[in-house]
Amino acid sequence: MNRRNFFVRAGAVAGGAAFLSGTDLPVAQLRAADSYPSPTSGAEPKPTSDGSTRIFEPRGVSLPYGPVVTSNNATLPWKRVDGVKIYHLVAEPVVHEFAPGLISNCWGYNGRVHGPTIEAVEGDRLRIYVTNQLSAPTTVHWHGILLPSGMDGVGDVSQKAVQPGETFKYEFTLKQHGTYMYHSHHDEMTQMQLGMLGLFIIHQKSPKTPPPDRDYAMMLSDWKIEVGARWPDPNEMTDFSVFTMNGRSFSGTAPLLAKVGERVRIRIGNLSTMSHHSIHLHGYSFKVVATDGGKIPEAGQWPETTVFMPTGATRTVEFVADTPGDWVVHCHMLHRVPSARVRCRSDG
Amino acid sequence: MNRRNFFVRAGAVAGGAAFLSGTDLPVAQLRAADSYPSPTSGAEPKPTSDGSTRIFEPRGVSLPYGPVVTSNNATLPWKRVDGVKIYHLVAEPVVHEFAPGLISNCWGYNGRVHGPTIEAVEGDRLRIYVTNQLSAPTTVHWHGILLPSGMDGVGDVSQKAVQPGETFKYEFTLKQHGTYMYHSHHDEMTQMQLGMLGLFIIHQKSPKTPPPDRDYAMMLSDWKIEVGARWPDPNEMTDFSVFTMNGRSFSGTAPLLAKVGERVRIRIGNLSTMSHHSIHLHGYSFKVVATDGGKIPEAGQWPETTVFMPTGATRTVEFVADTPGDWVVHCHMLHRVPSARVRCRSDG
Amino acid sequence: MNRRNFFVRAGAVAGGAAFLSGTDLPVAQLRAADSYPSPTSGAEPKPTSDGSTRIFEPRGVSLPYGPVVTSNNATLPWKRVDGVKIYHLVAEPVVHEFAPGLISNCWGYNGRVHGPTIEAVEGDRLRIYVTNQLSAPTTVHWHGILLPSGMDGVGDVSQKAVQPGETFKYEFTLKQHGTYMYHSHHDEMTQMQLGMLGLFIIHQKSPKTPPPDRDYAMMLSDWKIEVGARWPDPNEMTDFSVFTMNGRSFSGTAPLLAKVGERVRIRIGNLSTMSHHSIHLHGYSFKVVATDGGKIPEAGQWPETTVFMPTGATRTVEFVADTPGDWVVHCHMLHRVPSARVRCRSDG
Repeated sequence: MNRRNFFVRAGAVAGGAAFLSGTDLPVAQLRAADSYPSPTSGAEPKPTSDGSTRIFEPRGVSLPYGPVVTSNNATLPWKRVDGVKIYHLVAEPVVHEFAPGLISNCWGYNGRVHGPTIEAVEGDRLRIYVTNQLSAPTTVHWHGILLPSGMDGVGDVSQKAVQPGETFKYEFTLKQHGTYMYHSHHDEMTQMQLGMLGLFIIHQKSPKTPPPDRDYAMMLSDWKIEVGARWPDPNEMTDFSVFTMNGRSFSGTAPLLAKVGERVRIRIGNLSTMSHHSIHLHGYSFKVVATDGGKIPEAGQWPETTVFMPTGATRTVEFVADTPGDWVVHCHMLHRVPSARVRCRSDG
Repeated sequence: MNRRNFFVRAGAVAGGAAFLSGTDLPVAQLRAADSYPSPTSGAEPKPTSDGSTRIFEPRGVSLPYGPVVTSNNATLPWKRVDGVKIYHLVAEPVVHEFAPGLISNCWGYNGRVHGPTIEAVEGDRLRIYVTNQLSAPTTVHWHGILLPSGMDGVGDVSQKAVQPGETFKYEFTLKQHGTYMYHSHHDEMTQMQLGMLGLFIIHQKSPKTPPPDRDYAMMLSDWKIEVGARWPDPNEMTDFSVFTMNGRSFSGTAPLLAKVGERVRIRIGNLSTMSHHSIHLHGYSFKVVATDGGKIPEAGQWPETTVFMPTGATRTVEFVADTPGDWVVHCHMLHRVPSARVRCRSDG
Repeated sequence: MNRRNFFVRAGAVAGGAAFLSGTDLPVAQLRAADSYPSPTSGAEPKPTSDGSTRIFEPRGVSLPYGPVVTSNNATLPWKRVDGVKIYHLVAEPVVHEFAPGLISNCWGYNGRVHGPTIEAVEGDRLRIYVTNQLSAPTTVHWHGILLPSGMDGVGDVSQKAVQPGETFKYEFTLKQHGTYMYHSHHDEMTQMQLGMLGLFIIHQKSPKTPPPDRDYAMMLSDWKIEVGARWPDPNEMTDFSVFTMNGRSFSGTAPLLAKVGERVRIRIGNLSTMSHHSIHLHGYSFKVVATDGGKIPEAGQWPETTVFMPTGATRTVEFVADTPGDWVVHCHMLHRVPSARVRCRSDG
């Protein structure tokens, strides 16, 4: 199978896994290449003659922005075709490891729970193919992103749901920058509780200030997983047993690293089922500089050591890591405390 | 029965229902006119000689403000007597339809759940008669409104509770403008969970900027209604089964309409039992411009696509409906998603 | 036993109770003086020759700041030695009265639930001895306070936990001012739910504006206490039966007093297990002026009548008590309504 056929027929399922590096991807989904349907929307994604680097543009020094780091996860690769950035999300079952020893069936994107982070730049024209490899219809909503109504991804409101085996083409131009999210918006109670969500970062086109030294992205969610159960319970309304940052619980969470004196940005999204979280950062006072509605005017930026995270919202916080140490980042709801850490290395 | 006697003896119970139009009022409460007690507080509300339009001043072109639209509900009528605006709330049992097919006994005001929206203007002198047609004592608290302590409506603190059959006269001058609420403050856990709450809008007296093209008012609440139960369970503390906007759940909620390019204001109050909601608006980024404490300085107005609604608070948001479409407005807590919609018509 | 021996050997357990006045301290813990271990950390706290007023410096007219009032609780005494302010917290079992008739075993500090309020001034060098009189290891985290990593008090991250019978010396210089908290950060789900938390107020060194006429401090928390149980249930995650302000429920809560026209500050902290509260103040509109991250710029201070209190955060609000009356302060979550009151006396 050459690279062309691999993309067209086996597609982003394995492709995503192959291109995304440095992650703790759980048990891979094994499927025959032939079972992957061709995109239904015509000419794109076009195969390329060599099928390697141009399938998905690798991230590197040529990026006009400082990419975010989604700890324990990855950024979705893309390629540029005729001035349009092409992405491919595959909605599919995923066997996910929440923490060492805690493994459950889930639904996610491209072999991941949550889906990989989408990154783009203000002004970009995006084309995002969503292939439904689930046993149920689905859609993808681009939370907070200003776009035409038909691209909004609400099942049976802005579009007909994408049936199993089908691929839907979302296309829109980014009119804003900031921290947004994407998630299923069809039978969302079930599908989001099973993991169908991710972060969507839009970088500013020509920022007047230099980017931070560290730019982290973190998605919060909660789960009900009964002891011995093979699936999270998507009907749970009040009593959640697992809280995750980027889909992982302690001790499975990677630290957020910074050197002393560096400027750190953390972009936090919360798509927990019912919970509004209180994310407390030890060691530093930070400012809340943006939401999924955009940048907060400087005079309106609140200083905090605990940023309140309503579900269905994002908050971007910034601080200078001026004190060395091993500082904990956790939700202050007591049953949610075990979580990630910021480790500031003084040897930098 | 002439109009005069109708008002004095049958009063605002049927009167409210008669004057409030365009709503989905549930099964009417049928009571003999004689069972309605005369107001206990003397001269007012005075009957008028013709008993028609001046009983309650009809809303129309002569209003010095743009009235709000409380979808699926109505504004409480009033009349002006000797420079005082007179309102009449009747606390009473209501058979309420939450959505097609979901009907329950409740307690409300003037045949409605929630009570009708009170509208007035900064500087107005208000006299609000509250008649208790319930089987239990009650009071009305005017949430967020600056007034003398004796008018604050807290049972056994600022007043003795209003006994069944009694009418209490609240009277105060409005020193502020904004979005406020009213609700029972006697055995409030029971009475508020049964529906005894409403919105209280005070328009600015001489605004420097023109009013928005659309000015919506929306009250959030949650309920526990067991399958087959005839009453909501007012003892529930954690597990609520019905979430409503203006007392209605999808598919019973009316859309919030706007034409492309119009400036839209949505005033949201939350008196849910225990839940803080995350109201997400698709399609637009908006600004949070006011709370029940007053107007937020412009530099402090946060942009959002999801406004966090603490229970016991109001938030006023504003945006320009610059993109046509059928956009969903919902609480982002997953079990609360089905809800109202903003429909922006491009044919305007 | 002279005063010297009393301090060194019986220590702050009874000492705290003796020096803290005007509170409704529950049943005292009776222990033999000999059971109290000497501090393990050497020279301090040094006994003094007279053993009276200089053991802990009494609060009085000489304070360079207006002390806060922690209703139903007290401020932790301290003494100054060689330019360092010395405090002593004793973590120990406490029999606590939540309200008349509602008594439960708890864990607290210095015979109190919550622990007494720590007060200091920006720039102060503090030395805080924490003696563990519990049957389990513990630590103290200084929430929101900027300090060296080794003083951060997270068990097994920033320090080894303090074993039963041991005393740990925390020492740091205050680089900020505002309203902060302290609490156990070792097995925090259990220890915090049993009461191991308190307020930490840092006064501004040279404020440009005069202090408020009233400066109150209030800590929120919730508890699950089964009928007849002798201990709160520290495993509860969703269903809390007791909500407290400064460890007390109505009718055990003291009013917050003010005279008409006085400027009032209320510093509120929330360390509830899982609940974010909505603290509603009748009668006044106030401004939210600071968080545990610091002062909010004036243009960003929101006016409110209900301040939303995320758990793990503090909010400081200010208003002028311009209307006389007996105004209620309560959480607006309906099952949390019974609570404290602000009583404004017009006879002032």
